Amino acid sequence: MREEHTYIDHLWAVIPAGGSGTRLWPLSRAARPKFLLPLLGSRSLIQQTFDRVSTLTPPDQIVVVCGPAHAAAIARQLPELPEGNIIIEPTPNGTGPALALANALIQKADPLAIMASFHADHDISDLGAFQRATRTAVAAARLGDLVTIGLTPTRPETGYGYIERTDDLRTETSEGAAYRAARFVEKPDEATAKEYISSGRFLWNAGMFIWRVDSLTSELRQLQPLILAGVTDIADSWGKRERERVLAQTWSTLPNITIDVGVMEHAQRVAVVPSEMGWSDVGDWHGLGELLAQDAQGNAINGDLVQIDTTNSVVWSSGHRKIATIGIDNVVIVDTPDALLVVDRNRGQDVKLVVDRLKGEADPRLL
Amino acid sequence: MREEHTYIDHLWAVIPAGGSGTRLWPLSRAARPKFLLPLLGSRSLIQQTFDRVSTLTPPDQIVVVCGPAHAAAIARQLPELPEGNIIIEPTPNGTGPALALANALIQKADPLAIMASFHADHDISDLGAFQRATRTAVAAARLGDLVTIGLTPTRPETGYGYIERTDDLRTETSEGAAYRAARFVEKPDEATAKEYISSGRFLWNAGMFIWRVDSLTSELRQLQPLILAGVTDIADSWGKRERERVLAQTWSTLPNITIDVGVMEHAQRVAVVPSEMGWSDVGDWHGLGELLAQDAQGNAINGDLVQIDTTNSVVWSSGHRKIATIGIDNVVIVDTPDALLVVDRNRGQDVKLVVDRLKGEADPRLL
Repeated sequence: MREEHTYIDHLWAVIPAGGSGTRLWPLSRAARPKFLLPLLGSRSLIQQTFDRVSTLTPPDQIVVVCGPAHAAAIARQLPELPEGNIIIEPTPNGTGPALALANALIQKADPLAIMASFHADHDISDLGAFQRATRTAVAAARLGDLVTIGLTPTRPETGYGYIERTDDLRTETSEGAAYRAARFVEKPDEATAKEYISSGRFLWNAGMFIWRVDSLTSELRQLQPLILAGVTDIADSWGKRERERVLAQTWSTLPNITIDVGVMEHAQRVAVVPSEMGWSDVGDWHGLGELLAQDAQGNAINGDLVQIDTTNSVVWSSGHRKIATIGIDNVVIVDTPDALLVVDRNRGQDVKLVVDRLKGEADPRLL
Repeated sequence: MREEHTYIDHLWAVIPAGGSGTRLWPLSRAARPKFLLPLLGSRSLIQQTFDRVSTLTPPDQIVVVCGPAHAAAIARQLPELPEGNIIIEPTPNGTGPALALANALIQKADPLAIMASFHADHDISDLGAFQRATRTAVAAARLGDLVTIGLTPTRPETGYGYIERTDDLRTETSEGAAYRAARFVEKPDEATAKEYISSGRFLWNAGMFIWRVDSLTSELRQLQPLILAGVTDIADSWGKRERERVLAQTWSTLPNITIDVGVMEHAQRVAVVPSEMGWSDVGDWHGLGELLAQDAQGNAINGDLVQIDTTNSVVWSSGHRKIATIGIDNVVIVDTPDALLVVDRNRGQDVKLVVDRLKGEADPRLL
């Protein structure tokens, strides 16, 4: 039975589905990226993202932006998503051109649209908090701000960008508030990250952006005129005979830049909605282990394991083999049919180094 | 080209091939025991044992005692071994009946024989020392003693039995000496093992026994008359129509006992030849790792590994998968097509606990 939802008027959700999730190798691969994997439950991360935004807007107002290699898998994983709502980037070009193109296409379909962008490979455990923050952000966006949802940081993470907020209230609803954002900052070093946490003024930038489509178009006109011209040409050709040619010719001429660097850091009217929603980027095996159910010894186990004196470890098996561990602490073991990873849990970020090393390998399926 | 060897007159080598090597699971299985595996080089441990004794006696004077499940594999691994020299125990019954039967069959073939028994699954790195110790032991055996070769211990090992030697010289050759053995002792506790080492009078019992076939027969008459009667009946039937029936009926009535407990601990004239020959029982993954070639970080690696900051570890792969390790120290990883083991290197002895646990499993091939 389908649940009844209270949709937000004119809300269009955009789900950028890029990146392979290198740090979750060997489960994630270039051909089977993180967002397609059912890491947390029976549905993949992109399915869970789709489910989440589906509580706020109908499927025909949800758009996925992805690469050519993943369009078919996405189409099958999201049968409710209209085929025309899958936008394929010919080549990866940063979130700047990708979100600008989505914005142009949505603006063409609905000039009053509010576009809200959420990455395909993040986890959010508190759906209610996500909905409240999004509704607040939409309220702020209606007034013309480019809005981001900033997550209250729980540790001095050096792997994320931060947003410094002010106390200048831009918009307030019964469910939250949006403040003027002072600045966006890139990934800090550890000392700086600690200062950010103790200041209480910094929020994690999780790439959640909400704006009126015409607001972004205005900012693009000032800040990224080449991108705006390109995506306008592409949007004009959409549904016409020349679509493929225009896309192919135009896309490669656009600057490769993120929306953060290309727009948000320099835009005039940027607001941030602080929120806690049990957010995680499911960035590495250590983090995934924290999201999975754990046994009394702190182990997160997926697969057929015989364990003796095993603690605080993550064991992920593709399920076809018997795994035994003895006297193992704080280790991640990931077992797939063609590759096995054993890594100190504190070294989860370094899994990408293995993938880098494998780039010289004969078999590209390993990557 | 076949090497020329200086064979020892009337020497018959017996190779008991029993035990699955549980602690080398998942590489070793009941159906593919340790002695059949090429753990140290391209030839299996039983092939290396055969090669070693082949330097002292011709193939038709080498006898293997094994169980029904392994006879075919042994026949194929040792093509030079005459088929009739594979003695199949109907059921495992300890080394007492097994060696007594070999002794009876050899005595029938050559009443002047010296029988020398060496386990199928041990490693010896110093062939010359092995040959010298064996020749010395044979010299002592010719005078009527039951002789054992005792290894100079290198650590207070609690996993082996020990032999206490005396200074009473029984036989001396240019290559070594045999002394009266004071006693055989079972596996000691750690404190006792340390006393043994510091006393300098204790040697490891590696199950290397050398005797004149008539000497053992005399001792069996005193100490194990049931076994002697049984194996004599079986030997009498050997090569006759009733062989299978006699073996089947008699074997199960014999006491299940080791030659150590059944004979050596109580025999009148027991001598021991101390030796160092780079001996190992290849007992567990830690020990095997010490025998394998190691890289500069102390890792023993067999297989296709990408390693980052990996030290003092053993990685054994069946070779069909890519393995990656990061930040791993003192761990053993054993990767086979249907089972994976990850174990703290200090817990190598506990691998048998996993096999015990798996005994309730549906698939007996895992055991």
